[in-house]
Amino acid sequence: MEATRAQTFLMIPGPTPVPDEILQECARQLIGHRSEDFSQCIEQVLEDLKWLGETKEAPMLFTASGTGAMEASICNVINKGDKVLSLVCGSFGERFAKVAEAFGAQVERLRVANGEAIDADTVAEKMKDQSFKAVTVTHNETSTGVINDLEKIAKVVKAAGALILVDAVTSFGATKLPIDEWKLDMVFTGSQKALMLPPGLSLLYVSKEAWQAYEKCTTPRFYFDLGKYRKFQAEQTTPFTPAVSLMRALQKSLQMMKGEGKDQIFARHLHLRDLLRSQSKDMGFGLFVKEEWASPSVTALVPPDGITVPEIRKELKQKYNIIVANAQDDLKDKVFRVGHMGYMFEREIGMTLFALKQIVAQKKSVTDKVQALK
Amino acid sequence: MEATRAQTFLMIPGPTPVPDEILQECARQLIGHRSEDFSQCIEQVLEDLKWLGETKEAPMLFTASGTGAMEASICNVINKGDKVLSLVCGSFGERFAKVAEAFGAQVERLRVANGEAIDADTVAEKMKDQSFKAVTVTHNETSTGVINDLEKIAKVVKAAGALILVDAVTSFGATKLPIDEWKLDMVFTGSQKALMLPPGLSLLYVSKEAWQAYEKCTTPRFYFDLGKYRKFQAEQTTPFTPAVSLMRALQKSLQMMKGEGKDQIFARHLHLRDLLRSQSKDMGFGLFVKEEWASPSVTALVPPDGITVPEIRKELKQKYNIIVANAQDDLKDKVFRVGHMGYMFEREIGMTLFALKQIVAQKKSVTDKVQALK
Repeated sequence: MEATRAQTFLMIPGPTPVPDEILQECARQLIGHRSEDFSQCIEQVLEDLKWLGETKEAPMLFTASGTGAMEASICNVINKGDKVLSLVCGSFGERFAKVAEAFGAQVERLRVANGEAIDADTVAEKMKDQSFKAVTVTHNETSTGVINDLEKIAKVVKAAGALILVDAVTSFGATKLPIDEWKLDMVFTGSQKALMLPPGLSLLYVSKEAWQAYEKCTTPRFYFDLGKYRKFQAEQTTPFTPAVSLMRALQKSLQMMKGEGKDQIFARHLHLRDLLRSQSKDMGFGLFVKEEWASPSVTALVPPDGITVPEIRKELKQKYNIIVANAQDDLKDKVFRVGHMGYMFEREIGMTLFALKQIVAQKKSVTDKVQALK
Repeated sequence: MEATRAQTFLMIPGPTPVPDEILQECARQLIGHRSEDFSQCIEQVLEDLKWLGETKEAPMLFTASGTGAMEASICNVINKGDKVLSLVCGSFGERFAKVAEAFGAQVERLRVANGEAIDADTVAEKMKDQSFKAVTVTHNETSTGVINDLEKIAKVVKAAGALILVDAVTSFGATKLPIDEWKLDMVFTGSQKALMLPPGLSLLYVSKEAWQAYEKCTTPRFYFDLGKYRKFQAEQTTPFTPAVSLMRALQKSLQMMKGEGKDQIFARHLHLRDLLRSQSKDMGFGLFVKEEWASPSVTALVPPDGITVPEIRKELKQKYNIIVANAQDDLKDKVFRVGHMGYMFEREIGMTLFALKQIVAQKKSVTDKVQALK
């Protein structure tokens, strides 16, 4: 049976499915971004983002995707020649290192193999070299489905007096991330992940220490100049025309998240991860990442013998119109990734498992028939 | 009568009213940005943008507001120390100069008074100094409602061998702007103006000569690095997660624009401008900009004696829920601005004129009553 008439369902690590209530916000006629109504929206959003990030300081909001916020986390504190340690366990860790290099940092990479997490003790070892100004880290590496032990890593980085810059694109809102308690200096995310919004908006939390570095940073910048955002946001407005629709959508999504509760949301993500991992394993899929590093928001799976990643993706799309992501670079066609963050529940994991099971069974039954004929 | 139940109607110079068909695109469930469907969307959008810009080269598409594209037009071609001439006839011309300075340019400003246009002959005089690498110009100065004679200015700039970088945020799609014929090197706009979309997307056309300058430009950049966009867009995709909903909305708006026709759209804008100017003048409003410089997309008006800008804006909002913009900086509270670009027709100008007439008449009648009692 072909699923050409079924609506595309995204089980990729972003964009994630957007709830109807939020899509409706996106469909509302625009309001002026210098209006009182919009200022109230900004105020509410900033308040709720303090709640979600467990921090006293509201983040800066950008009209940009996550990489824009990544750039902002670098170009506002890193000067040409500054030494940066980049913890790389996949493509997004590597991107963070490249951004730092683009702005003139001397980057040293601490790499681990795909599918592995960064070891905090190794970081501590590295930090004995006291000359690092900052450490970049990917909290949840989307390309492999690994979550790093950010709390531990932050501890050793802060103990060494460096700034810790955190890519939380696929962790923020999906898992515990208490910014103040863990003393994180920069934390950014994008809208199209656990926040359940369309892409186009990103945000960056900035610590006091990061603001001090900002004051001494001379790297050229304008659109992502944090000082401009701080100044305008203090008056519930923005330096440049914001993505008005997405801001109203964000207000709605945060309201939904408050309704569910932080702990409940984080527990739901862990539950979905565990459900997907245990049942896909039972079906013969390989788990690319071992339990202790398994991401709460994206799971990388290796197909059982006899079926390939392209076959699985094609069948999932054609028969069920469910979209899962291929892996990137070296892992492409060897591993596929199932996103399970944001507006995601048991039933979505269930339908994906059902579809995977059917696809594998059918492939096996065809192979068996061919064998029998030989 | 209070208009609290009437929906806000934006007669500001952006965001502009968005047609229902486009809002519906914004409300569609997301698709993956690496999907074939989305690649087709990109392909169509790029084709249609060549048509609208009358150019052989498709623009680069950014998830950012217009200022992001402004930055891209600078940081990809201007090196530290380069001499830039900035033509400034209002706030946005000044912003362009500031962006160039932020990236290390030695900026010389050619300023004219608010409400006046840049004189091409004066620019020609300046260009005798052959050391300018680039000239920044605001095609349509949103802060004052002035349109510059870009064709003439471009001619003298190109004759002098400099790059011409054009802020077309409130002109592109509202007025004739044949990029190749006028030999413009960089032209950018934002989505929330004549393109009839919500804010959050911007685009930048880049000439061959600008690409040559790009190859020699060492200014640090990442998110707005044009080479990345060129590479990915050649394969109908994007370097970073794009604003998927806005891209689909853009596809729709371009389809609507093709349906109406470029010449018809431009003529409509001129007609609305002329209608607003002549009738508001008859009602005693002052026209801040003289006829030959009058913008096709935004008109700055001075209230008649006896009523102030804040009073007009307040009454328009309270009684009609029509929003017009105050002016900025020195002109604030002395001049107000009516936007008439994008999805705007005679009837919208008509309702605004009607409301303005009522407000002025009522104010006058109250004043007369008070006088009579004295």
